[in-house]
This record gives sequence, structure tokens and C-alpha cells, in this order.
Amino acid sequence: MAIRTLVWGENVHEQKNKVVADIYPEGMHTQIAKLLSKDSNIVARTATLQEPEHGCSVEALANTDVLVWWGHAAHGQVADDIVERVAERVWQGMGLIVLHSGHFSKIFKRVMGSPCALHWREAGERERLWVVNPGHPIARGLPAYFELENEEMYGEPFSVPEPLETVFVSWFQGGEVFRSGLTYRRGAGNVFYFRPGHETYPTYHDDRVGLVLRNAVNWAYNPESHPELLDAPNTPVDEAIEKIEERGPKLHHGREEGFR
Amino acid sequence: MAIRTLVWGENVHEQKNKVVADIYPEGMHTQIAKLLSKDSNIVARTATLQEPEHGCSVEALANTDVLVWWGHAAHGQVADDIVERVAERVWQGMGLIVLHSGHFSKIFKRVMGSPCALHWREAGERERLWVVNPGHPIARGLPAYFELENEEMYGEPFSVPEPLETVFVSWFQGGEVFRSGLTYRRGAGNVFYFRPGHETYPTYHDDRVGLVLRNAVNWAYNPESHPELLDAPNTPVDEAIEKIEERGPKLHHGREEGFR
Amino acid sequence: MAIRTLVWGENVHEQKNKVVADIYPEGMHTQIAKLLSKDSNIVARTATLQEPEHGCSVEALANTDVLVWWGHAAHGQVADDIVERVAERVWQGMGLIVLHSGHFSKIFKRVMGSPCALHWREAGERERLWVVNPGHPIARGLPAYFELENEEMYGEPFSVPEPLETVFVSWFQGGEVFRSGLTYRRGAGNVFYFRPGHETYPTYHDDRVGLVLRNAVNWAYNPESHPELLDAPNTPVDEAIEKIEERGPKLHHGREEGFR
Amino acid sequence: MAIRTLVWGENVHEQKNKVVADIYPEGMHTQIAKLLSKDSNIVARTATLQEPEHGCSVEALANTDVLVWWGHAAHGQVADDIVERVAERVWQGMGLIVLHSGHFSKIFKRVMGSPCALHWREAGERERLWVVNPGHPIARGLPAYFELENEEMYGEPFSVPEPLETVFVSWFQGGEVFRSGLTYRRGAGNVFYFRPGHETYPTYHDDRVGLVLRNAVNWAYNPESHPELLDAPNTPVDEAIEKIEERGPKLHHGREEGFR
Repeated sequence: MAIRTLVWGENVHEQKNKVVADIYPEGMHTQIAKLLSKDSNIVARTATLQEPEHGCSVEALANTDVLVWWGHAAHGQVADDIVERVAERVWQGMGLIVLHSGHFSKIFKRVMGSPCALHWREAGERERLWVVNPGHPIARGLPAYFELENEEMYGEPFSVPEPLETVFVSWFQGGEVFRSGLTYRRGAGNVFYFRPGHETYPTYHDDRVGLVLRNAVNWAYNPESHPELLDAPNTPVDEAIEKIEERGPKLHHGREEGFR
Repeated sequence: MAIRTLVWGENVHEQKNKVVADIYPEGMHTQIAKLLSKDSNIVARTATLQEPEHGCSVEALANTDVLVWWGHAAHGQVADDIVERVAERVWQGMGLIVLHSGHFSKIFKRVMGSPCALHWREAGERERLWVVNPGHPIARGLPAYFELENEEMYGEPFSVPEPLETVFVSWFQGGEVFRSGLTYRRGAGNVFYFRPGHETYPTYHDDRVGLVLRNAVNWAYNPESHPELLDAPNTPVDEAIEKIEERGPKLHHGREEGFR
Repeated sequence: MAIRTLVWGENVHEQKNKVVADIYPEGMHTQIAKLLSKDSNIVARTATLQEPEHGCSVEALANTDVLVWWGHAAHGQVADDIVERVAERVWQGMGLIVLHSGHFSKIFKRVMGSPCALHWREAGERERLWVVNPGHPIARGLPAYFELENEEMYGEPFSVPEPLETVFVSWFQGGEVFRSGLTYRRGAGNVFYFRPGHETYPTYHDDRVGLVLRNAVNWAYNPESHPELLDAPNTPVDEAIEKIEERGPKLHHGREEGFR
Repeated sequence: MAIRTLVWGENVHEQKNKVVADIYPEGMHTQIAKLLSKDSNIVARTATLQEPEHGCSVEALANTDVLVWWGHAAHGQVADDIVERVAERVWQGMGLIVLHSGHFSKIFKRVMGSPCALHWREAGERERLWVVNPGHPIARGLPAYFELENEEMYGEPFSVPEPLETVFVSWFQGGEVFRSGLTYRRGAGNVFYFRPGHETYPTYHDDRVGLVLRNAVNWAYNPESHPELLDAPNTPVDEAIEKIEERGPKLHHGREEGFR
């Protein structure tokens, strides 16, 4: 069964900046969706900031298995309630792939619980991504390393939580390194951060980048939904699995709900 | 040098519920601070919800190395800007120890980025905490396991991120298990969640619990501060460590700041 | 494409102990293979201690994607060179699923690098496995918990490395807990330890156990092989990716091999 | 109380190679011990391959809190039983710090359970170590990065298990990256791998390297010993914590020992 993938693009610089528009005439989101569609297992749709509810209606998210997120200039314009809605879907099992400047998106910071800051430089320098974890599904089919001749530099420290696994580490011409591919799970949702993708360079026309993204969508896909991970039910004493007797003083009574 | 520890207590049930007031006549926070003060390396102060800024003024936090947090009924009354202030201090290096029902506190959910939900039952049943990681500093001096004859049950799944390390796992009389001691790092701040501590039982009069808390404060202490982990500086091309030349098109100019 | 799975059974108690022979008349390995074969994506063969090279010839391993290992009384009879051969295949990408008393098998201790010890009791007591990580592929399709009415008890501390993820935690009637499902990666090989499976109980006739094993085989499967992870090649200076000049004194000359 | 630290040096190239002897006239182990002794909390002794039992007698190890290991040309000459003895002390709680070419030492491979391979080049090129985890105790007091003007290159993939935490990542002039500081726990023993230290360069005369090593010794120190982590005791039914009755068939009788 196909993996229903939603590629979210901020779609701002494509409309305002000639350089970006020339590289991505149909928008970055459309080009990323094209990269994903080369995998017959993936059905990719797009959504943008400008759509009602940023294209992230309850229904749209309910029909999304994996969400891919690219944003940069307009993080602050994404409505907080939509961010919370997306986070809840992630916790229930929707995959989330955050790209490049999305490190500062509200949704990434929301599920990381940390600043997600880094050093940066926009100089079109060479980036070389090394596969440090060749057995990881996201690295499947890749060579030992691959290069992007022109990219923005991101430098450590990247203030994110220690990942489940580090998949890629980048070398930059100007002397920096960066952990470029990091995996997490939040609730039942798989989360992957992938570094490259500055809008003034043709990164999403690179097929090694495409392969990483296709691998990541397949890895992040969870066919199950776990809404129960958001609940905190009271298990009544008389329904305890092992028979016990109630003892001692109490705050709550019977089947009362807890405090939140 | 002493570890400046701030014990934050919600201080609600101690004022309203006779059972709780009888066990903790000076408040839970005061009793927790007493447990900590048995370590000559720790200087423990207290703060409560009812104080101005909940006792978490900028100055108070600047003078805190480790913050211990107990809350339950009044999570919703903690002001959002104070939560954000606490989170920023954690990221800079302040330790954070979250107790029991604090799993649903705003600050814990903020730094976990996940629902932090669980199953529960208030039946005064037996809890047995097993040390699964005897080499961890937080388990120092403890026996293989210890029991709390009356505790509230918390059951899995506990929807938190996979921890750096699992230190304790609890067995409950009614048939459940729970990962009771979990470590994390967020930015430069060490975070420890410790399960026991329901307000209607004398858990914070137990000295094994006290030992865990003293160990945890020592483990969480970071003498350094890292405010830079919240910044995302632009490293200008002419200051690159390895000499590079600017290439290709640009969005940003010179020493401009990035988007947030 | 089918996942070529080899179920290795020690096949000792099945031949000597009437209780075990009655439960597993064709051997435990055969019954485990039957559980796996319910998944049309898995092709399961068996191998036993008594076969030449314990059924783990170079050719047999070369044709194995995932190896499932059950042993108990005869760990010491497994030849060291076969253990090393299996470890090398794991590092190259073969999955390894270690069952129950296999915690003390040479191959598990070899890839863990730790004692892998635990407490135990053979009393036919109740075990309840809780899913602590419902989003993990190995937990797919399972209820919140499942019970095995009669099992051997294993108690913490289980002296294994902190896993990538903890999937199951067991509750035992006699008061212990155990981390029952743990994931690791060694080289390019995925490793899963699963606790239940004492030979005097019908554990491998339980279909929840079967589901866990089928999920685990699918999770552990890596279609790629990475023999390069065992090599330590000298990258000659004149083949450096970025042009550099040799400087300073040297131990090695030209394309010499390193020390091992 | 002082941390009793044993610096183990292979002491081979210092005796045979003039370049190495000139940099380390008293041996690398002596120079490393000097770096450590700048911390008044550390008492550093040395041991070498050539001593009886390689200086790792039962008594010597019993009096060691943290072992620092440097070896290169003579890994194969370290006796297997000594390696096993060291591993057992690590599991009981002795810290282990493995340096540079020690990645291929028997003891490191023993406790990692993986190939520990990498790419390398001896060209005296520049290495820049970035602190990716500034809150980690091992990074305390360090700048954002530091450089070693002449070092051997080690390149990814480094086939070790995913660490508890990654502390340093190196940039190399020739285009490679390497995870240069990695933490593990094996049994009750803390393990740290630190990359720099090729014998033909004056790396152990660098005080940032010294600071890392001193921090690492303090971090690795565990005042407790946990020999029980190597045992697998039978807990008799009549001593179960929660009263249970024996049920079903058995393999073992009474207080019999288990199979190993």
C-alpha cells in the first residue's frame, strides 16, 4: 500500500526571489514531491503556508502517513494551533521529515524540546555528506559519501537532543562539521532531520538527496495509529489485572479523571 | 562548591487536603529540601506556585544550579512565560529533576516534546523499584531494589522519548511495570525523571528516595553555562576558519541575521 | 523478495528431556520456524548444534538474511570459529535475533561486549510483557500487554549495553521486572533480544510470541551487505578528496597496510 | 579521594623509532600520565606491554579506578587472558579510556562487540575537533573547537556501536570527518574513546588534549564495584519476594546453578 506523503513548503522565496524561482519554478515543495514520486511506493501531495490552515487541515493530516517540512523565512507565520495539531499526529504515528532551515520551524522545536540552534554561513561552499551508519535504512543504496558543490554551511553545536542514531555527518570547505542526518521517535512517530536544502542552490535536483528522502519516507512510515499515547486513563482498582485491595488515603474517587 | 538547588512545590494539596497536610505539614517542597540537605554538597531552597513569578524570577533561576519540580493539580496555573524561562535556563545548563505527577507539568512536556502520558491507579499498592543500571551515578549506594509499600501506580506506555539511559524500572502489585528513572540532556541541561511521590503517601520521608534525589542533584549539576546554545550566529565568509571564496547566489547579505 | 531466515536450535533438551520432547516433538527450532513461516515474506530453514559446522557453514550464512538463535545447555559446545564467523556476518548486515537463554550464548556475548548476566527462577510463574514502545515495528499489531501463564523468571539487572530502544518490559508474579525486548545495531547488522522461551513451557506455540518474532525478522532484515565495515584501508595522500600535501614524520610508507 | 589511574602504553615505537623517541623520550604513557597529573584529583601510574602480565596483574587492576589505553603496533602481543581480566574489571566498574590507534586494541574490540574499523591516512594534516555536546562533562572548559595542526586522519564509517553520546566530531583537511569522542557503558564501567594521538606528532603535549583526558578520567570514575553483574544467580522459589507457588515441569532442581 502506498505511503501517503505530504510535502509542506513555505513557498515564500519562490515567489519573491528570482534566483529561487529560477531553480524551483513550480516551488520547492513540488520539486521535492517529484523526487519522492520516483518511488512507486510513495504517493506525494503538496501543501503550502498560503493555503487555508496551511494545507494541514484535520482531514489532510488524517490522510497523511509521512509529512515532509521545508520552511525558512516564515516560521513565525505558521499558526500555533496548526503546529499543535501536527505534533499530535506525529505522536499518534505520522512520520515527520524536517529539512534544512526547518531546524527552526515551530514543529521541529516543538517535538525536540530544545533550541535547535546552530552556526551558519551562506557562501556556496562545498558540503560532503559522509554515511556514518551504512546499515541504517535511510543510507541504503548510497556511496560512502556524496558532495553538494554549493551549499549553505551549518556548524556545530546543533542544540538538539542526542538522536536515536546519527546517519550522516557533513564536512564543510570552510572548516566546520555537522550531524546532517538524525533520527528520533516521538510518541509513535518517527522523526528524521536532514540538513541540505538551501533555496538558492539546486539541492533538490540532486538524486542522492532524492534517494535519502525516499529512504527516509519509507523508514518513517508507520502503518499503525496510536491515539492512546495521548491519554492518561485511570485504571480502576476493581479492574486491576492482578487482584489488589485498595489501601491508604486517596485524592481521587472511583473512575475520576486525573489532573492535566 | 555547593550545588544551589531550588525545590519547586505546587503547594496546593498541602493547603486543602488534611491527609497531605498531615504527612507534609511544612509542604512537600520543604520535606524534599530536607532530604536534599543531608548532602553537605547541596544547598536547597524552596519556591512555590503562589509566590510572585512562582518563585522562578530571572534572578532566582540565575542562582539555581539544579531545579527539582513537583506539581500535580495546578499544572495549568503555571504561567507560560515562566515555563519558557525555565526551559531556557535548562538549555543553558541548569539541571532539572521532575518528580512523579510532574510528568504532566508544562516544563516537562516542553523539554520532552512528547505527550508524557501514562496509565494510573490510586490504590496504595506496593511499588518495587529495581535498579537496572547499577553503574549509573544516580543508583549509587542503593540495594538491588527497594520497596514503597503504598504508592500510586503508573503504567506503561509512558509516552516520553527513549532516554539516554534507563536507571530504574518499577514493579506494581496490580500487574503493571513502569520505567521509573530516566535520564535526558536538553541543550547543556541534564534532565532526570523520577516516578515515586504521590502526595497521600509518605514517599518523601523514605531515605532511599532521598538518596536517589541527592544522587540525581549531583549528577545533574553542570558548573558551566552555555547561553550560546540558544543563538544561531552568521559566520561571515571572511572569517571562515579555512579560507574560502564566496560562490553562487545569496539570500542574506554580509553579517545579516538569519530567520527564526 | 523473501527474507531468508535460519532458525538455529541447540536441540539438546528435546532429545533428552521428555517434557521438552512432548512440547516440541520436532524440536524447538522447527516450531519457531513454523511460527515464522506464517509470514509469506519469510522463508525459514533450520540448523542445529549437531550438524557439521553447527549448520553455519560459510555458504549457509551467505544465504541467510536473518539468524534466529536459541541455545541453553550447550553454549560451550559451539565452536569459537563458528561464533566469529557468525559475528562477521552480523557486522556485514545479517540480522540476529537472540532468544531467552541465548542471553548467555557465545554469539550474543560476543556482539554485546558485556556479561549479559541476570537473575533467574524456574517456577512456572506468570509473565506479563508490556509494550513500552508501541510505535516500534517489532510491537506492530500487539495489544498493550500479553501474558504467558508459565514462564521462567529473568530479573534485573540484565548486564547488557543500553539498547537503541527498549520495546518490552516484563512483570513477573514473584516480584521482578525485566527489559524483555531490546534492539541494537552492530556494524550493519540489526540485533534483537527477546526474553521468553523456556523449553519446559509451550511459549513457542503462542501466537503473540510468533507475531513478535515475525515482526522482529522483518525489522532486522537488511537487503544490503557491508563487508567494508571490517576493513581499515589506507587512503593514500595523493588520492585525498581535498588536495593536501604530506607533512611531518611518518611511520607508514606509501600504500602500506595498518597494524591490527 | 584521588582517582587511581593507570596509563597503559604499548611502548614499542618509542624504543624503535627516532621520531617517536624524540617527541616522547620517556614514553607516551609517561607523558600522558603527566597530563593527567595536572589534576590534583588524579593519581596516575603507568604500565607497559613489556612488564610481567603487561603491568595488568590482578592486584594492579584491583587498585585501578580508571585505565587509559594506548596501543598500536603490538595489539596482537597482548595476552588474551589479560584482555579478559581487564574486561571483567571494566564490567565491575573500572573506567576505560581508549586512545587513537587503540580502536583496534583487543580490549576495545572486546567491549564494543563490533569491528571498530575506519579509514586512515598518515599525512600530518590538520584536524579540527568540534565540541558537538558542550554540556557533557568531558567537554568542560573547552572552546567551541580546537585544532591539531598535524595528525593522522581517521575517516568514517567508524564501525562501533551507536554511543550513549557523541562529544566530539573531527574535521580533516583532506575532506573526511570522524566521531572523535564517544561514550559507552559496559556493565558498571564507563568507556570513552578519544581519537587523537598518533605517535609521530606531539599530540600528548597539547593541553586541550590534556584537558579532555582529565575530564574523561573524572567522568569515567565510578567509586563503586559491581562484581554481581557477572553472576547469574538462581533465586529459589521459596525466597521469591512475592509469595508464589512452583508450577509446571522443571529442568533445574532446587538451588542448582544455571548453564553458561
